[in-house]
Amino acid sequence: MTQPSLDVIAIGNAIIDVIANCDDAAIEELGLARGGMTLIDADQAHGLYAAMGPAREISGGSAANTLAGLAALGARCGFVGQVAQDQLGEVFTHDIRAAGIEFPVPARAGDPPTGRCLIFVTPDGQRTMNTFLGASHYLPAEALDEAVIADAAVLYLEGYLWDPEEPRAAMRKAIAAARKAGRKIAFTPSESFVIDRHRADFLSLIDAGEIDVLFCNEHEMAALTGIADFEAGIAMLAPKIPVLVVTRSQDGAVAVAGGVRSQVAAEPVDKVVDTTGAGDLFAAGFLFGHVRGMTVSDCLRLGAICASEIISHYGARPEEDLKAFVAERMG
Amino acid sequence: MTQPSLDVIAIGNAIIDVIANCDDAAIEELGLARGGMTLIDADQAHGLYAAMGPAREISGGSAANTLAGLAALGARCGFVGQVAQDQLGEVFTHDIRAAGIEFPVPARAGDPPTGRCLIFVTPDGQRTMNTFLGASHYLPAEALDEAVIADAAVLYLEGYLWDPEEPRAAMRKAIAAARKAGRKIAFTPSESFVIDRHRADFLSLIDAGEIDVLFCNEHEMAALTGIADFEAGIAMLAPKIPVLVVTRSQDGAVAVAGGVRSQVAAEPVDKVVDTTGAGDLFAAGFLFGHVRGMTVSDCLRLGAICASEIISHYGARPEEDLKAFVAERMG
Repeated sequence: MTQPSLDVIAIGNAIIDVIANCDDAAIEELGLARGGMTLIDADQAHGLYAAMGPAREISGGSAANTLAGLAALGARCGFVGQVAQDQLGEVFTHDIRAAGIEFPVPARAGDPPTGRCLIFVTPDGQRTMNTFLGASHYLPAEALDEAVIADAAVLYLEGYLWDPEEPRAAMRKAIAAARKAGRKIAFTPSESFVIDRHRADFLSLIDAGEIDVLFCNEHEMAALTGIADFEAGIAMLAPKIPVLVVTRSQDGAVAVAGGVRSQVAAEPVDKVVDTTGAGDLFAAGFLFGHVRGMTVSDCLRLGAICASEIISHYGARPEEDLKAFVAERMG
Repeated sequence: MTQPSLDVIAIGNAIIDVIANCDDAAIEELGLARGGMTLIDADQAHGLYAAMGPAREISGGSAANTLAGLAALGARCGFVGQVAQDQLGEVFTHDIRAAGIEFPVPARAGDPPTGRCLIFVTPDGQRTMNTFLGASHYLPAEALDEAVIADAAVLYLEGYLWDPEEPRAAMRKAIAAARKAGRKIAFTPSESFVIDRHRADFLSLIDAGEIDVLFCNEHEMAALTGIADFEAGIAMLAPKIPVLVVTRSQDGAVAVAGGVRSQVAAEPVDKVVDTTGAGDLFAAGFLFGHVRGMTVSDCLRLGAICASEIISHYGARPEEDLKAFVAERMG
């Protein structure tokens, strides 16, 4: 097995976040799923944008955010995702490449436009996401280069992209290529509603031993296992996955690796501004530790620190010098 | 004279700010004019964007930022400026309307695209701006509705837009319409290099008594008067303008109105994150006080408080609830 030239390659949605503040009443009036992620079509996106306050645009996409964190920590990364040939596609492409991440997939001509996520942030920092996937779901299976997958130590997959047929085919192809090359596969189911639609697929991947590292939050674990009790869920899932990581928002996170359980408290922050990307950056910190061979405890701590940076400002891409931020806090 | 239905109508550039952090060395390497504003063409914008780190996109434009501040404080505002029919034009249009500002000018078809300002923010919070004006300078004189100008208590003009012929014609038309309706005219020369090119025009406007409120910083005042000494510059300019407001960054600001001089210290901030929009928001606070009939001292204080909000985060549009922010600090 040759030494891979990348630490992590990820497949995920290529999305621009459109982030606005709103009060709690607006969430009710607009009938939004508070704290969740809802898929919307072009017409809904148009209507919801009109109802939104002044916004800021920052590149997003769950797996892409994780890579931005990994790259900021010093990992070598590549991204596979689909933007359109439009200004938002240029913005996404610029931002991911400027973060030092390889992004070889050409922009797609014609409709639909580059995907965007309309994010309403309430005064408690909670984000409510409404995603128009646009070009993101048109990632063709042939955009996937098996040699590139084989050349990364870890393949990281985002469940959000399991829905449409072509990207799902691309991910299955990537899993096979990674396995064949003896690489590790990390996976996040992304969201409970994704699990509701693809539970059988995800469980069969897990049962087949295709997932080396699984990231989920406690709600997603419950959706995946069908078990509401946290401890019972852990007990059911942990034996099937080499590294299971479950995040619990302000209650920190738990990891079980090789039968050994570790946990970390949430890193304190002065003020939670916007929780967008908390899970993505937790995964970034954990995975960075993982590819660098750190202990599971240190991986968890890295994850918690990275998550604390991202929730202290708007947007899901690191704003501080993440390496310095982590170095100050790891002690 | 009928009661106007708007407090302030402004004519200015319609620009999206593209804001990235950089270190001091990058400013040198890229040969940028630290702390200033440089006009760049499409090719330069392309090259500079490629050299820029991951960015955030936030609506900008000097006068438009001032209106966003005014509207957040509760003023009724309108904006005249030109975007293109593209995604960044949609973003600008959305943001200004979502701020409650009337924006009647239709987007322009074809090239050039919507203008953008590539802003490099150094660790001290200083911003270095590089502006590709794009569609902004294609504002046609006929886009200006004299009835709308006559229906606002104050016409606010941005010097940046004095350069191209058509928008300059629009501004001259607006000045005449405002005068005829007995409205006040507020003006900012925007930047020393604009003054270098149009000093004679600006001085003749001032000498003709066309400017009721002039906003400039100390460097712009020196460029306008040709007098390096601050006090001598004030002494020369103040008798010609009913309300002269001169900002001095961390040294606060001075106003002379009807021969009476007032001054204010800079409002303290925990951390200067990004000075983009400091002057624009100072003007917003001052003008809000002015249209509400406050004392010049209170107008200055309002300006300083609004400027302190904008420099404590990225971007030149208010992020906090500006009304509450001001109420807490005005005492």
